Amino acid sequence: MQAMTDNFENPDKVRGNVLEVALDYLAVGLDPRQSTFVIQSQIPEIAELTVFFLNLVTVSHLRQNPTVKTEIAQKGYGESVPAGFFVYPVSQAADITAFGAHLVPVGEDQLPMIEQTREIVRRFNNLYAPVLIEPQAMVGKGSVARLPGLDGQAKMSKSLGNAIFLSDPADEVKRKVMSMYTDPNHLRVEDPGQVEGNAVFSYLDAFDPDTAALDEMKAHYRRGGLGDVKVKRHLLDVLEATLAPIRERRLEFARDMGAVEEIVRQGTAQGREVAAATMDAARRAMRLDYFRN
Amino acid sequence: MQAMTDNFENPDKVRGNVLEVALDYLAVGLDPRQSTFVIQSQIPEIAELTVFFLNLVTVSHLRQNPTVKTEIAQKGYGESVPAGFFVYPVSQAADITAFGAHLVPVGEDQLPMIEQTREIVRRFNNLYAPVLIEPQAMVGKGSVARLPGLDGQAKMSKSLGNAIFLSDPADEVKRKVMSMYTDPNHLRVEDPGQVEGNAVFSYLDAFDPDTAALDEMKAHYRRGGLGDVKVKRHLLDVLEATLAPIRERRLEFARDMGAVEEIVRQGTAQGREVAAATMDAARRAMRLDYFRN
Repeated sequence: MQAMTDNFENPDKVRGNVLEVALDYLAVGLDPRQSTFVIQSQIPEIAELTVFFLNLVTVSHLRQNPTVKTEIAQKGYGESVPAGFFVYPVSQAADITAFGAHLVPVGEDQLPMIEQTREIVRRFNNLYAPVLIEPQAMVGKGSVARLPGLDGQAKMSKSLGNAIFLSDPADEVKRKVMSMYTDPNHLRVEDPGQVEGNAVFSYLDAFDPDTAALDEMKAHYRRGGLGDVKVKRHLLDVLEATLAPIRERRLEFARDMGAVEEIVRQGTAQGREVAAATMDAARRAMRLDYFRN
Repeated sequence: MQAMTDNFENPDKVRGNVLEVALDYLAVGLDPRQSTFVIQSQIPEIAELTVFFLNLVTVSHLRQNPTVKTEIAQKGYGESVPAGFFVYPVSQAADITAFGAHLVPVGEDQLPMIEQTREIVRRFNNLYAPVLIEPQAMVGKGSVARLPGLDGQAKMSKSLGNAIFLSDPADEVKRKVMSMYTDPNHLRVEDPGQVEGNAVFSYLDAFDPDTAALDEMKAHYRRGGLGDVKVKRHLLDVLEATLAPIRERRLEFARDMGAVEEIVRQGTAQGREVAAATMDAARRAMRLDYFRN
């Protein structure tokens, strides 16, 4: 449902990606016995909550949302931004509250979304009845709070084409790492290089477990004599240590897509029960519970 | 659901009005065997359609809607207009299309809403598949296209407090008619008076079946010698000829509110089936029909 806000002209793409995302979840180790996978568009209660939440936010407040502001600029929408995209923080608030989430794992750039959700929940609970849970954001530590794109710009994003995918085969990861953004002034191996704002080192900060060796490598790069290719090869090794087992699990799950579909189907049914109970409580709080005995 | 967009702080008021509106419908002669009465908020498919329709309209386009513009000014919202109110033409488009309406009876001031609906339907049908019906507006003839308020300003509206209600007892109607806006320069009976922009004559145009006698009365008023009180008494007679039987039927239906509730309950169930079928077709068109065999 939310992917449609900026892909509404291309619904087949959205549909195709849904099971790919489920495969990613399974590949990184989410266990469907502990985590419920749902397809948002199959939970109408989220749309319903969204429509009522829209009453609790002003247009000017939505206009000030920094994440949406940045994305509207990135996509070049200007004033002709589709209304669905403009109000998507409200739809996200419905996603979170429909399932009674207490904690939401997010990148740093998504913090305004959680704040928007908290405001809506407080407003709802104050106006009607305290039936919704006010969530907390859970942000990764240090540099993992926001991983830059391969181009060093903005965040990793599929639409910007500057991301490594869990479905990428090893040679594709290699190609991407080798073309990563480093220090544009580090032209010859012997030149001193800059570590700050250098995407390769940001990725090493996030993924290299040997921080002592990484510190040495940074010092070497800074004083000169360490070439980009060498650092990139090291990053590739580091990434592959994480990615190879994920890739393997992904291929394994992909062999039985029927089972993956079944996981999503069951998760969606289970999630819908939770969302329906929330919507029921919300409707009662808003005095829209007609036809109850 | 839509009444909540500008009454979200007062849900009890909305709830209380729902059965009053049903009584009005029955009192004016709508026959539940021919017309289906539904409570919008009990049809989640409308919210669902609304969320998808939001992708098909831009923020700047909504900003230009003349009806919403006027109402935002009337309510003094400015930029702090609630998002739900701002996007209500989209929710209206969902109301209309959910039930596959071909023809929508509206006041003249609502024409931009129907036009917005038609645009959304065309966009949807072009992008996905031709599953939605493009409705036509049906506007009352002549002066009935838009009845002014009792104060001669804007339209009749409950929130502006310038309206006669079908539930008003006879003495309340009398009080309201006697305080109606006429020609502010028509101070003495012998003064010539103006018929244009004179709310009393607008109402006579709409409700007096004896147009020949009305033309004579207008001529008399224009040349002077006809007092406002006399014209208002005539209007009161004319209105009572329409209102008295409605008022009687209303009181009759109000004696058995259980039966009225049952009419609405059955209508809502019936309406929901139609809306669910539309949403099903819309979901299939958008390729969001997962889990179908």
